[in-house]
Amino acid sequence: MTSTTTLKGDRFDRQLFESVLKRRFFFTEAFEIYRLSPNFKGDNRGLFDYGPPGCALQANIVDTWRKHFVLEENMLEVDCTVITPETVLQTSGHVDKFADWMCKDPIKGDYLRADHLVENVLQARLARGTRGLVKDSPKLDQTTIDKYNDILAKIDSYDGDGLTDLIQRHDIRNPENNNLVLPPVPFNLMFRSTIGPSAAAPVYLRPETAQGQFLNFKKLLDYNQGAMPFASASIGKSYRNEISPRTGLLRVREFVLAEIEHYVDPKKKQHPRFGEVSTLELPLLDRDTQLSGQTTPRTVSIADAVAAKTIDNETLGYFLGRIFLFLLRLGADRSKIRFRQHLANEIAHYATDCWDAELLTSYGWIECVGCADRSAYDLTVHSAYTGTPLVVKGTLTEPITVEKWEGVLDKKRLGPLFKKDFKTIESALYALDQLALEQLAAKLEETGSVTLKTPPLSDHSTSVQLSNELLSISKITRLQTTHEYTPNVIEPSFGIGRILYCLLEHVYWNRPDDPARAVLSLPSPLAPTKVLIAPLSTHPPLLHLAQQLSARLRRLGIANVIDASSASIGKRYARNDELGTLLGVTVDFESLRDGSVTLRERDGMVQVRGTEEEVVRVIRGLLVEGGEGERGGETWEGVVRRLGVFGSKE
Amino acid sequence: MTSTTTLKGDRFDRQLFESVLKRRFFFTEAFEIYRLSPNFKGDNRGLFDYGPPGCALQANIVDTWRKHFVLEENMLEVDCTVITPETVLQTSGHVDKFADWMCKDPIKGDYLRADHLVENVLQARLARGTRGLVKDSPKLDQTTIDKYNDILAKIDSYDGDGLTDLIQRHDIRNPENNNLVLPPVPFNLMFRSTIGPSAAAPVYLRPETAQGQFLNFKKLLDYNQGAMPFASASIGKSYRNEISPRTGLLRVREFVLAEIEHYVDPKKKQHPRFGEVSTLELPLLDRDTQLSGQTTPRTVSIADAVAAKTIDNETLGYFLGRIFLFLLRLGADRSKIRFRQHLANEIAHYATDCWDAELLTSYGWIECVGCADRSAYDLTVHSAYTGTPLVVKGTLTEPITVEKWEGVLDKKRLGPLFKKDFKTIESALYALDQLALEQLAAKLEETGSVTLKTPPLSDHSTSVQLSNELLSISKITRLQTTHEYTPNVIEPSFGIGRILYCLLEHVYWNRPDDPARAVLSLPSPLAPTKVLIAPLSTHPPLLHLAQQLSARLRRLGIANVIDASSASIGKRYARNDELGTLLGVTVDFESLRDGSVTLRERDGMVQVRGTEEEVVRVIRGLLVEGGEGERGGETWEGVVRRLGVFGSKE
Repeated sequence: MTSTTTLKGDRFDRQLFESVLKRRFFFTEAFEIYRLSPNFKGDNRGLFDYGPPGCALQANIVDTWRKHFVLEENMLEVDCTVITPETVLQTSGHVDKFADWMCKDPIKGDYLRADHLVENVLQARLARGTRGLVKDSPKLDQTTIDKYNDILAKIDSYDGDGLTDLIQRHDIRNPENNNLVLPPVPFNLMFRSTIGPSAAAPVYLRPETAQGQFLNFKKLLDYNQGAMPFASASIGKSYRNEISPRTGLLRVREFVLAEIEHYVDPKKKQHPRFGEVSTLELPLLDRDTQLSGQTTPRTVSIADAVAAKTIDNETLGYFLGRIFLFLLRLGADRSKIRFRQHLANEIAHYATDCWDAELLTSYGWIECVGCADRSAYDLTVHSAYTGTPLVVKGTLTEPITVEKWEGVLDKKRLGPLFKKDFKTIESALYALDQLALEQLAAKLEETGSVTLKTPPLSDHSTSVQLSNELLSISKITRLQTTHEYTPNVIEPSFGIGRILYCLLEHVYWNRPDDPARAVLSLPSPLAPTKVLIAPLSTHPPLLHLAQQLSARLRRLGIANVIDASSASIGKRYARNDELGTLLGVTVDFESLRDGSVTLRERDGMVQVRGTEEEVVRVIRGLLVEGGEGERGGETWEGVVRRLGVFGSKE
Repeated sequence: MTSTTTLKGDRFDRQLFESVLKRRFFFTEAFEIYRLSPNFKGDNRGLFDYGPPGCALQANIVDTWRKHFVLEENMLEVDCTVITPETVLQTSGHVDKFADWMCKDPIKGDYLRADHLVENVLQARLARGTRGLVKDSPKLDQTTIDKYNDILAKIDSYDGDGLTDLIQRHDIRNPENNNLVLPPVPFNLMFRSTIGPSAAAPVYLRPETAQGQFLNFKKLLDYNQGAMPFASASIGKSYRNEISPRTGLLRVREFVLAEIEHYVDPKKKQHPRFGEVSTLELPLLDRDTQLSGQTTPRTVSIADAVAAKTIDNETLGYFLGRIFLFLLRLGADRSKIRFRQHLANEIAHYATDCWDAELLTSYGWIECVGCADRSAYDLTVHSAYTGTPLVVKGTLTEPITVEKWEGVLDKKRLGPLFKKDFKTIESALYALDQLALEQLAAKLEETGSVTLKTPPLSDHSTSVQLSNELLSISKITRLQTTHEYTPNVIEPSFGIGRILYCLLEHVYWNRPDDPARAVLSLPSPLAPTKVLIAPLSTHPPLLHLAQQLSARLRRLGIANVIDASSASIGKRYARNDELGTLLGVTVDFESLRDGSVTLRERDGMVQVRGTEEEVVRVIRGLLVEGGEGERGGETWEGVVRRLGVFGSKE
């Protein structure tokens, strides 16, 4: 486990931190009262509910995301279903490849995720300095220490065979009971169900929002009136049936993803707004650095990283920059952000390059945002299966002469023969690239017949035999006035729950000399409640004043809450510091006489006093983002200078 | 099918209407390109994706809901998981009772929802005026017509036996092929899956958001510092595996619910803000009116309806009023709203009273909001199963003397005997009400031993035998200073997708004399895009001006879009009328000279002209809701009076 420090440089105490989040109901394990019941046989691990402040914080992060990305660039936001037919995820590759390796403990009967098992055992050995689980096992020598560290640095890059080998070679066992484990087998991470009354229609809960966006590509391009490049976006729940989730909000089975699919011409990966981020300096941990066993990122400007091809192209670089700015806008600690490039073996099956934005926490560096170049993979496979072209057609400014291979089927003879399969066969032919066509042409010339692979036909066959009487392939010279291409996709994908958790670690600290008084220094757009209104007592005229002020702030769209409990004002402030509430207004007997109220700021606990009118103006100035002339732009320092400090700190 | 009229009194043409929604990508069937593919074997019925305008409209409805309910009354919003362990839904009753009746056509092999089958067949017979499916079957006599209409009016109140009887008695067959159908059997409507690598942990996708809220009741009450009454709220996807969904967005398998659970003391169902809605006149179709075969609602003030006990209590009446105001705020047509009370047989298994807010569409009256009094049902059953008290404890202002039955177990002897089951047994005893305890006491007195029902124990038994040596039950007199009660729950539950669809029908109309030019008169907070910016040409200085204006509006939080396509300004406006875009700004060559731009309003197509400064001020005035002094408050009529009409209508 990593030792981190808080905003104020103190040691981060995870136990204290978690007790605050629990006490203030940011989140809780789902179905807790069932799990605590002696009769409960189910599994609630990896399932979490957000209480009121967690739910508001999540909504504020999503809202900031929507402003920063969707509204800023007029992305086309869609909302697609979670339930997804099996065929779609077979085509995308998820049914075959979206799996983790797991080992069964044959004696205890439980399942362990193989890479985590290796990691835990080797980390424990390194910590103990001995080679095995038993107390008097031999001390680790330097070669072994280096070897273990090397494995741990690359743990994400091992496949099933690699993990099997590691487990045997290093005698990895279930750390709970020292049992030998069975060799790892793949476990598909999607939740499976069936739709409708017949059991014959299998469906999955989507593991990402991306596929729904890809399937609507044609409609989205139409909606965008054919203009390229453009992006679609989606925010919604996604699901992964994790083998054995343990680390709280960081590894969950149900989570909110916010994903962007930016569609570009593969030959034009420049970005028109690249200049806005090109001088930003990012902490990059690239592939080569990691393979050399290093873990310290290099700070490089985006322009330089793209020029050196460390980052593959401008569009990818542009989004890495925008992601960095987004994380800073949320209040992430700049010194706890890095961008790590995926290693060749860990990269998702569809991606050609991928960078993760990682945030440092007490659990180590946590992947919070992935930014992948998915190439033309998804659009190509869905197009090939369905026979629907998912391409962009553009007019060339100057017509060009092209030579290309073209295949033509004898529709008159094949149509009646294959009936509704004919369209499938034709699509399969059209989906072939130039090289494949050239090879088929040679084969057809040589043998008089070829085999064409197809999606499953009515008789379940997946190919047809075609003679040179039914199929001709020849090289054609054409004057081309339009061109057609399958766009590449750059995909920034945000795990909202992980960002939320890491952020809370970043903004948490304690009042000096009082570890029991915690503060969450969330930036104002993220604070679940912006203003606490605390009447000094429950004297009805005071309550009435508080309610009036509350309604007034509500009309301005400012989330506020009245706490008229019998606790002291100090205790009410302390509770709200733990909730991240930015400002506190106290209404007292003086207020009834002269209409003045006290305003207190969370982080510094300094108070000012002014008329209700003045204080409402200050609150708007501090809270309303950006905007024109008369709005926003206040700073707390400015307010204190203008109104003067009132009274002493608590 | 119902014949309805548009806002302008024209006949509503559903085909034209749907072609607009499809053309503008409000929504689409999910996985359409797969369904169209000849190879696809799955089932995508009841699954819909929202395109950009539909997604924005949905977000705007949800946002309005949050302001109208959650922020207005400081409800505690939570976000709970969709995946729910089977045990939880067994306890709530959903595993046993959340089912529809379906009939199998044994020849064709498909499944038909039984009540819809009866409904469709009887409606078809009434429309044809004949008694059977065959052409020359006997004409309907008046007695049969009355009988059919009576069945149709009460169709929701038939259970399985009732439906079996109807199908036999009226010779109901599959209308597609005249096949006889098998008797109806129940089909559970929840999607089922398993969690984790072992298949032994069954889970369901939640059919409502309510259960997650109930399970967190204790934490929510703590968060609310013990104060009653209060409400929790939740917005999120829920799932129902409909047997055979057909009517577009109105019967779907995946949908967004927005639900409020308002917790009250069962003895204090008054509501502090009742006065704010009591004089509202609601169109009520109560139970008695329906059973008398009438379908015309009575317009009654909420105060009168509560006084007459037509609406059971003030809190229920308060929420019916708030729901009515919400629907009007969204732009629903006042003449197409009614509140229908559930009949005794159709009411959900947990509810004691329930009213639906229904909206009139071309499909007839559609249930969009349910408002049920769930009594103490849910909190009681979850508490009994888990042994966690889900109650409110309050201090009495005056102590009272109470006599009550109490059961006491001999813990010293039973503890070691039952080990961890002891707590379960004890909870089961504590969960008994006074009547049950009194009966047990008599039995114990009489026979010396009783059987106590329990949740499943370690040995799978569900009861224990207890002798009078182990259990004593006696009547105790106590001076009570605190009281404890299980709150009742009033639940307003909103189907966001249904509201969205019905609303679109309500605001749709055509330009006179041109059925091809449609308009969606969405109120400004709901319009997916608020402002269209149309530069007259792609001349770079014009584009630049448009981009500047766009960025300026964006900073003010106003969703806008630039359409710089080559279509005429008129065509661009027409496209945006179909998208519900409220305002259009044209930037032309005059703008480059004097900084003036044209502003056009959607519904009346009247244009005004002013400086960019002036037009931005007008836009803010028209769009920004409520607020203080200098904000909001503009009307389009006022703007036209001030600035004068510019040019002629298109």
